[in-house]
Amino acid sequence: MFNREIYIERRRQLRDQVSGGLILILGNSDSPMNYKDNTYHFRQDSNFLYFFGLDFQNLAGLIDVDSGEEMLFGDDFSMDDIIWMGPQESMQTKAARVGIKKALAYQKLFSQVGEAVKRGRKIHFTPPYRADNQLVLLELTGIAPSHQKAAASLELIQAIVSLRSVKDAGEIEELQKAAAAGYQMHVAAMKMAMPGTWEQKIAGTIEGISLANGNPPSFPIILSQNGETLHNHDHSNVLEKGRLLLVDAGAQTSMHYASDFTRTSPVGGQFSQQQREIYEIVLQANNLATELAKPGASYLSIHLEAAKVIASGMKALGLMKGDVDEAVQAGAHALFMPHGLGHMMGLDVHDMEDLGQIYVGYDEEIRPVSQFGTAALRLGRKLQPGFVITNEPGIYFIPALIDQWKSEKTNHEFINFDRLEAYRTFGGIRLEDDLLITETACELIGERIPITPEEVESTMK
Amino acid sequence: MFNREIYIERRRQLRDQVSGGLILILGNSDSPMNYKDNTYHFRQDSNFLYFFGLDFQNLAGLIDVDSGEEMLFGDDFSMDDIIWMGPQESMQTKAARVGIKKALAYQKLFSQVGEAVKRGRKIHFTPPYRADNQLVLLELTGIAPSHQKAAASLELIQAIVSLRSVKDAGEIEELQKAAAAGYQMHVAAMKMAMPGTWEQKIAGTIEGISLANGNPPSFPIILSQNGETLHNHDHSNVLEKGRLLLVDAGAQTSMHYASDFTRTSPVGGQFSQQQREIYEIVLQANNLATELAKPGASYLSIHLEAAKVIASGMKALGLMKGDVDEAVQAGAHALFMPHGLGHMMGLDVHDMEDLGQIYVGYDEEIRPVSQFGTAALRLGRKLQPGFVITNEPGIYFIPALIDQWKSEKTNHEFINFDRLEAYRTFGGIRLEDDLLITETACELIGERIPITPEEVESTMK
Ligand SMILES: [Mn+2]
Ligand SMILES: [Mn+2]
Repeated sequence: MFNREIYIERRRQLRDQVSGGLILILGNSDSPMNYKDNTYHFRQDSNFLYFFGLDFQNLAGLIDVDSGEEMLFGDDFSMDDIIWMGPQESMQTKAARVGIKKALAYQKLFSQVGEAVKRGRKIHFTPPYRADNQLVLLELTGIAPSHQKAAASLELIQAIVSLRSVKDAGEIEELQKAAAAGYQMHVAAMKMAMPGTWEQKIAGTIEGISLANGNPPSFPIILSQNGETLHNHDHSNVLEKGRLLLVDAGAQTSMHYASDFTRTSPVGGQFSQQQREIYEIVLQANNLATELAKPGASYLSIHLEAAKVIASGMKALGLMKGDVDEAVQAGAHALFMPHGLGHMMGLDVHDMEDLGQIYVGYDEEIRPVSQFGTAALRLGRKLQPGFVITNEPGIYFIPALIDQWKSEKTNHEFINFDRLEAYRTFGGIRLEDDLLITETACELIGERIPITPEEVESTMK
Repeated sequence: MFNREIYIERRRQLRDQVSGGLILILGNSDSPMNYKDNTYHFRQDSNFLYFFGLDFQNLAGLIDVDSGEEMLFGDDFSMDDIIWMGPQESMQTKAARVGIKKALAYQKLFSQVGEAVKRGRKIHFTPPYRADNQLVLLELTGIAPSHQKAAASLELIQAIVSLRSVKDAGEIEELQKAAAAGYQMHVAAMKMAMPGTWEQKIAGTIEGISLANGNPPSFPIILSQNGETLHNHDHSNVLEKGRLLLVDAGAQTSMHYASDFTRTSPVGGQFSQQQREIYEIVLQANNLATELAKPGASYLSIHLEAAKVIASGMKALGLMKGDVDEAVQAGAHALFMPHGLGHMMGLDVHDMEDLGQIYVGYDEEIRPVSQFGTAALRLGRKLQPGFVITNEPGIYFIPALIDQWKSEKTNHEFINFDRLEAYRTFGGIRLEDDLLITETACELIGERIPITPEEVESTMK
């Protein structure tokens, strides 16, 4: 937990940006696996963590924007709780740790909000993403779960996005810890990427590294020799010589800050010529994006620059043809990179995705693009100092997509479909770093994980 | 997945035990962590796994008891799904793998069940334990989430309990794999139990071992030098010389079968005289329970025999006094062991706890006991061949509970409260093995994890 002054100040700024009414921030509860009391690792809601700091189940925060009053709702522990779960600080003490004077029993939340609703006061809430909180919101506001997303407060969403987008010094320190654990995870995975090894064995081992550093990974580990599947959570293959192992994984610190890195290693430790050629293009795109990322530059424009590196590299290999700028404008590169260059990162690996990617990644100036590929870009707007973002270009050979484009002649003026046959079992390559936008440019968060082909090969020796 | 014949036969037996209507088994969906698409490890519902075998999200099974018709509901994948999540078998193929001919789109579930409800047919369902499935059930049946548990089908619950309680050969093989991974976890933890080590580092490392074997642990790891807290998921301490590290942890196989073991090790590798004395009592209780566990014996009676070993050992140390049988009858031993001797285990670590412990652990002959301590016993009924259970006696010194009993003079005729002062910071010891009830006795599942003080000390060397 940060110093209480941090939370007091964050809530003060939040109140300043919301015009009136009550701000309700629901904390999370335990999520059941296979029965009610067998639960997943508790993950507090990130907005609750940001403004109320307390990493416990079954809490809610309420801020009266008009009076400035702040309340925390939650229950004290019974003797039975103490026997099974250990001694706990009182709610009053917990509240005081984050600068809140008024702690009330959880049940009081219903009367407090109910009364405000009766008096016609506005209740600002964020879009709920867990069904149990949807049931709480239903009881609190009478709004059906299917209508809650639409009823969420745009004013609150925009206020939170404006605050959380810019990371402070304490947050950057946490992000660096997350990066250090991510470094360990990736180096361990590289060293394990040998023929005959079960993917799940590697995935489990590096998940253990994140856990041993404080928390589960910041997102479900993507790890596969079928790297062409962008979010591959199936780790059932046994690694084969000649394949590439793509690992997209990051750690989560005790305070729940994230890292998110991708590396691609040759199973067995040596890139083939064909692999190295594609790898160098992805690396070039990654390096260029880092060079271009600075305050004032839109991430959409950097995404397109990276796409040009890919199109131009593929053209040099004879896999694409025609004018590179035109190819990218037509979206032909998206056959090979059907995803965006990156996203915001912070308490969430896709930071604030619960609030709506459109508010986090775009603004009135930079609007989302509907073209296949770029449509998947989560962050388009202009960068600002204090933003933390990922830089993750990739090249994939997705047989089902290639076949579809070929048969539908999609962008056939830019693609040499015949040449692609030799790449059908190639898989995919993605290289991802985490960047902090500084006053004038950007810097990598954490020590850079081995990334040149030479560094990767020497790590695997 | 087992052979399709297994699932066909299980469903046939289930139909035989339910008198009429429709049996609805909802599969699980992904559970969000901090936003909708950032999800925990998928955990399929155990009843769904048992009867329908398919380990995928967003499925439902429907069995028409009267016509014998069986249906599987779920959606096929789109091209977008394939790009992000990889190629998948069709629903039709998946259904065929578990012997079901009729695969329908998920949305069809609503019309099928809706029509049956209109025609007044009985819909048998199990008590839902996830809020998202409560919302599905609400839409399907019109029953409010708060009433669904009471509306669940007792007939279905009892049929499932009678089938799942007795494990078949394939299940026992899976349980042995889970035990083997649990063995690795515990030996790794013992070796790491050195002064200066962060508890979370050990917990994370052994969670990684379970994951590397196929799945997350079967339940949140309990690991602490404050072993007196029965379900301690706070791993924030740094181990200190002179303390005991209690680790209660088990693995989950790829097919989701569980293990559940507890060992207690002296931080640094050497038991003190005081620790060894208490340890030997717990070990004696554990050994006696294994000796007594056989078909026809009630687990309630074995729980009470273990309690007598504890009371008698504590009396020999001068911590209890008076007649041992009377002390146990009064529940005085529960100051030191406020929990039950064990529970059923299988697909769930507390097997079938979603169905209601009263139906799993008790029957008309053996009823639950309300006395503090024994009230926490999850399994009381007579054992049968094929039951898989845990054997987990313990002795704890819980300051808050000792103070309460002392000040309220609870069982003061059996407790030497003054002598307990020397044990205030002792912590707790629990020793847990997993047992398979055979035709005549029982056997341990898996190789026994080092358990005598000598074995533990030599493992830690
Ligand atoms: Mn990323
Ligand atoms: Mn147990």
